[in-house]
Amino acid sequence: MLTVKAYAATSPTEPLAPTTIERRDVGPHDVLIEIRYAGICHSDIHTVRGEWGPVTYPLAPGHEIVGIVAEVGPEVTRHAVGDRVGVGCMVNSCRECVNCLKGDEQYCLKGNIGTYAAVDVDGTLTQGGYSTHVVVTEDFVVRIPDGLALDAAAPLLCAGITTYSPLRHWNAGPGTRVAVVGLGGLGHMAVKFAHAMGAEVTVLSQSLKKREDGLRLGADDYHATGDPETFEKLAGSFDLIINTVSAKIDIDAYLSLLAVDGTLVNVGAPPEALAINVFSLLMHRKSFAGSAIGGIRETQAMLDFCAVHGIGSDIEVISADQINEAYERVLASDVRYRFVIDVSTLN
Amino acid sequence: MLTVKAYAATSPTEPLAPTTIERRDVGPHDVLIEIRYAGICHSDIHTVRGEWGPVTYPLAPGHEIVGIVAEVGPEVTRHAVGDRVGVGCMVNSCRECVNCLKGDEQYCLKGNIGTYAAVDVDGTLTQGGYSTHVVVTEDFVVRIPDGLALDAAAPLLCAGITTYSPLRHWNAGPGTRVAVVGLGGLGHMAVKFAHAMGAEVTVLSQSLKKREDGLRLGADDYHATGDPETFEKLAGSFDLIINTVSAKIDIDAYLSLLAVDGTLVNVGAPPEALAINVFSLLMHRKSFAGSAIGGIRETQAMLDFCAVHGIGSDIEVISADQINEAYERVLASDVRYRFVIDVSTLN
Repeated sequence: MLTVKAYAATSPTEPLAPTTIERRDVGPHDVLIEIRYAGICHSDIHTVRGEWGPVTYPLAPGHEIVGIVAEVGPEVTRHAVGDRVGVGCMVNSCRECVNCLKGDEQYCLKGNIGTYAAVDVDGTLTQGGYSTHVVVTEDFVVRIPDGLALDAAAPLLCAGITTYSPLRHWNAGPGTRVAVVGLGGLGHMAVKFAHAMGAEVTVLSQSLKKREDGLRLGADDYHATGDPETFEKLAGSFDLIINTVSAKIDIDAYLSLLAVDGTLVNVGAPPEALAINVFSLLMHRKSFAGSAIGGIRETQAMLDFCAVHGIGSDIEVISADQINEAYERVLASDVRYRFVIDVSTLN
Repeated sequence: MLTVKAYAATSPTEPLAPTTIERRDVGPHDVLIEIRYAGICHSDIHTVRGEWGPVTYPLAPGHEIVGIVAEVGPEVTRHAVGDRVGVGCMVNSCRECVNCLKGDEQYCLKGNIGTYAAVDVDGTLTQGGYSTHVVVTEDFVVRIPDGLALDAAAPLLCAGITTYSPLRHWNAGPGTRVAVVGLGGLGHMAVKFAHAMGAEVTVLSQSLKKREDGLRLGADDYHATGDPETFEKLAGSFDLIINTVSAKIDIDAYLSLLAVDGTLVNVGAPPEALAINVFSLLMHRKSFAGSAIGGIRETQAMLDFCAVHGIGSDIEVISADQINEAYERVLASDVRYRFVIDVSTLN
């Protein structure tokens, strides 16, 4: 067992604080990663505060992890000491079910093993990336291509793959009209990706406050959803809408913006059920779909795509002692567009 | 103007009764059809009773029309006097929009012109197939292949294409697992089509009452949705679910029956909004979609497919004076599986 420094929650209500956690010894197929940066995802906040169900404390969250390989097990072939690597939202899966075999480990029929707050194969609870080191089986570790800065790469492991995967799955590219709802951590990545894929990109944000940013990130157009005229003007305009907003929205209104055969994909989910009028789907053969992160192979493809297109996340790097303050700013949507913890400040 | 016999509603509450209606003179591109059979669709009842909004009376419904060409306009090239032909749910569209040009006239951006209770291009109100004759522009008239009996072909024009189109669009075929929810007029056609396309077909019906029928129609399996164990046993089992039930159902429960990347397609819509938990879509990249009838080209392809595979609707032929009684039996789900009016009894 390795005892390593971490920043962890000790209860649903207390601020996160420095502590130590245990990592397993490096097994034959394991990689020990010296973590350099960890992104802060809204999910981290939901989880540590028990909003998605009870969790065991202390809990170090963080599933946007990048670092350097410090040690590898004797059987490891995919990574070597000194490699720049990343770990996203899952650290293992059954590897045997139809979905795992297809490379869709995120949809593992037995449930993938989350990077934190999950029961690992050895029965211990997984701990996330707000920590100096992590031990992960080599197949769930991806390579960070040379061209990418480590800090700006961290959010790619969750915010990146979560938006890249549906854009690929629903064939965003030249000739397709993509709308991105919400310009936050996920939304700003969706805009960059859809633009780099060659699609025509529109941002749908509550107000025009971030319009300049949106256009700089690659959007061709930008509209305020707070203005009811937007829904009239843009009726039937999009082939694909990626909704990054987890709050309850008027699904029928957004479906009205789709062209025939269009798809509205939610990458987040509000806790309450949404009301949907089936006529909204029926009249022009529209679909309402969901998508969760992406498989390991696709995560690697996304990172390679980022290197080719010079894509990173727009980030604000913070020290570990700013995590609690950052959480409040995430909740107030006051970040452009992702906080990344400089893990060296944990030492 | 041609004055022709019809069976029409005169108010939302009175029974339908014999009357006469007007048909336009046969124009250069028009076909005059001597109607032989007209199917009774649940939509007919909703419409004449004003349940889908106010309508103008007298109104002869019926959009499952088959007959013989009696006269053609001078410019008509697609049909000739004596041809066996059919007309479905629409009799025209703008022919210019992106959807019409693709052959998806049902999704015409200006709205297709319904076979009854719609405003025609000349400003008159369209009247449906419970009538001895109809005049339709040749492009919205399809050919009934020789192998098909006229009476059993009538319901193909609505119940047939409504289920055939989504099965094709979502690629039902060998290796796909298709569930059909509801074994009525639409459902029994969905079972026949999915089976003929080579898919593995399961019927999900409230009870096992029609189980023997379902298996005879081509289903490989049959389950009662009234039994809660069904949802546990079949979790994650289907690639495609065609929901033919227009009543409010528990969408999340049906979504749980889909495998990764599966789609639940509604071909009918309840008037009330449905509640959907987005997690039901998110966790295995599922879709909830809608589909409405099919284009003219696809309707012809469906009829040709029926001829090749020997598919017709299972019908009960009635005389015109049994229409009101038949309506009550449709509402009581007491028909296996479609009423077809023998229009010769109107004379």
